[in-house]
Amino acid sequence: MTNITLTTDFGTRQGSDAVLHGAIYGIAPDAVITDLSHHITPQDIREANFVVNNSVFFFPDGTVHVIVVDPGVGTERRPIAARIGKHYFVAPDNGVLTACLDRAVREGWSSEFVHLDKPEYWLDNVTMTFHGRDLFSPVGAHLAAGVPLSDLGTSFDDPIRIPLWGAERHDDGSVTGEVIYIDDFGNAICSILPEEIAHLDVPDGVQIDICGAHIQGMVSTFGDSEYDSDTLIALWDSSGYLLVSENNGTGGKVIKPKPGIPVAVRSRI
Amino acid sequence: MTNITLTTDFGTRQGSDAVLHGAIYGIAPDAVITDLSHHITPQDIREANFVVNNSVFFFPDGTVHVIVVDPGVGTERRPIAARIGKHYFVAPDNGVLTACLDRAVREGWSSEFVHLDKPEYWLDNVTMTFHGRDLFSPVGAHLAAGVPLSDLGTSFDDPIRIPLWGAERHDDGSVTGEVIYIDDFGNAICSILPEEIAHLDVPDGVQIDICGAHIQGMVSTFGDSEYDSDTLIALWDSSGYLLVSENNGTGGKVIKPKPGIPVAVRSRI
Amino acid sequence: MTNITLTTDFGTRQGSDAVLHGAIYGIAPDAVITDLSHHITPQDIREANFVVNNSVFFFPDGTVHVIVVDPGVGTERRPIAARIGKHYFVAPDNGVLTACLDRAVREGWSSEFVHLDKPEYWLDNVTMTFHGRDLFSPVGAHLAAGVPLSDLGTSFDDPIRIPLWGAERHDDGSVTGEVIYIDDFGNAICSILPEEIAHLDVPDGVQIDICGAHIQGMVSTFGDSEYDSDTLIALWDSSGYLLVSENNGTGGKVIKPKPGIPVAVRSRI
Repeated sequence: MTNITLTTDFGTRQGSDAVLHGAIYGIAPDAVITDLSHHITPQDIREANFVVNNSVFFFPDGTVHVIVVDPGVGTERRPIAARIGKHYFVAPDNGVLTACLDRAVREGWSSEFVHLDKPEYWLDNVTMTFHGRDLFSPVGAHLAAGVPLSDLGTSFDDPIRIPLWGAERHDDGSVTGEVIYIDDFGNAICSILPEEIAHLDVPDGVQIDICGAHIQGMVSTFGDSEYDSDTLIALWDSSGYLLVSENNGTGGKVIKPKPGIPVAVRSRI
Repeated sequence: MTNITLTTDFGTRQGSDAVLHGAIYGIAPDAVITDLSHHITPQDIREANFVVNNSVFFFPDGTVHVIVVDPGVGTERRPIAARIGKHYFVAPDNGVLTACLDRAVREGWSSEFVHLDKPEYWLDNVTMTFHGRDLFSPVGAHLAAGVPLSDLGTSFDDPIRIPLWGAERHDDGSVTGEVIYIDDFGNAICSILPEEIAHLDVPDGVQIDICGAHIQGMVSTFGDSEYDSDTLIALWDSSGYLLVSENNGTGGKVIKPKPGIPVAVRSRI
Repeated sequence: MTNITLTTDFGTRQGSDAVLHGAIYGIAPDAVITDLSHHITPQDIREANFVVNNSVFFFPDGTVHVIVVDPGVGTERRPIAARIGKHYFVAPDNGVLTACLDRAVREGWSSEFVHLDKPEYWLDNVTMTFHGRDLFSPVGAHLAAGVPLSDLGTSFDDPIRIPLWGAERHDDGSVTGEVIYIDDFGNAICSILPEEIAHLDVPDGVQIDICGAHIQGMVSTFGDSEYDSDTLIALWDSSGYLLVSENNGTGGKVIKPKPGIPVAVRSRI
């Protein structure tokens, strides 16, 4: 019994997400499938990086993660499978694994990659527009059923990486980043990690600038603020990143941040 | 193989719902997980009561229900686990179990509660903002894997209860309640049960007042009305409550009820 | 271990979709359940035909497909179960299986049908408004657990069929159809199949007319167009049908097609 997760931009109305389950069970009847998300913004490879990297490593070692955010479906882009540390991935080679590969570097994990060029591991009929169903899910199922990674294709070592988010330290000690993601509570998750502002007086001595607002100090959790529910607060998110929230985690009323909007952390004046 | 259900206000875009599956499979690989709902209105503990109580008892005895609608995450509110009748629950102690506990009283079921104060049953790193992943799901997984409830924490007997919905009978025989929930068909589910209007001449002799409309009599099911599709009808919902619907269950065109709006049932004039 | 899929118009907020899982596990603890879609447009039996027929046959032989799009719940409409080829179906007899039955005719598969008239295979309490939970899911679970189809009800051979979409060839060689479905990328899936325009010079010599726009020629896949992202393209969808897309599969900006809108394919002038 092996775990498989599915991450796509298919939505859940049409059955395109569910048909992946069908294709998998036909090959690996004992697979245990989790829908990681089917609501990636269509074709947003950066967002898929964020969502995937936040969650996949909480699954058991050996889990197979199938990711289909694939604007280049049917073109020359390579379909690939990878082992990153103790997890397996099946995806188009379009940079969607960048954040996981960055993590592997930080953690000292090894990685290996194959170009999926063996049609015997795909469905019999492969359409030009639905490789999620016809190619990626079947390959994921074969991995879950015990086929070695190296059997599924030709080894290579240069997966595509794309620029993601990051943080920059300036001469005055301030650190700037950007909003990565707006969660379903309206919170803004920002590209700044604790180690990047460790030289500042965290939590009480910092100011966070976002969307023209200036937040004084950081709190530990949503319920820690004494202020009313429209007050902006900053704290460390469970993903590790800086999070800006309207008090108690119901955002969107005071500021309306979007991915890409700049954020800065500086010493409180 | 034990069933686990998950009820949260996390939405399904970000993977925060799916990562609970990952945390569970790491502890209880054979668990069978059902997503009860991840679309509770953010931090709406009353709505969670309604959704959970309507569905959980249709699962097999022994099922573990993990509920994470948790505005107080990271504060002093207790994380708890409970047995209510033959079902298990893991949740913050914020009143989210009130409707199930009321049912236990009505049904004569016993209950027991523990304060989750044993970190050895949690993930190694517990963040301040995501106890769903770091604490509640792991505890649910340990329960599903066979750890006795009493091992998971310290026994107590005063779980928090919150005021929910109800019905009131008046001197003229009329009964008033409120809208509890608007379902995805636009139907209004109201806090009035059959026994509360048994003194009236149901179904033909009653009038239901809601949002300024007056519905004459009740029908048995959606297709029973002879009227056109904008006609309002009243019937007994599958949850047991009074339901007001635009004919054939596609509401929202004639009246636009919202949770908390008053409803009354009286003798037809 | 038998697969069950669920297709409904219940949405996923209220738990009405999840409670079907509970009802099933109580009867067939080893069932492997896939949510095919719970987002059928409420009571849209035609749309359910499209979604179901596109996906169910990718599941393993023997899978049980429970479909609850049921405007007539609680009325005289028959609850039925069917075998179509090597797949099983449980649904109201309202035409929701028409597309699968049409496929059976084309493929030469046999079919058999029973009227579900044996309450011993239902839940003990059957409400008037929720046969999905009380009748269809329990019957699906009994099928998955090995009860023969013929034990579940009385055999019959005239399931209701409804008019679906199609294509018409005209004297000038042009072929007209209609938009069947708008997917989550905003693409319009149209009721024209390759064999219906085989007499035309596909792909380069055809013109597709939709919403006042005229698309010259067809491409192989989304990434094949050389034009900018607002360009309309036409291609064969993975479901087999003609698909009209704004370049790269992010539609809805140039034209706003809806189900039922006419589409035509003719010789390029």
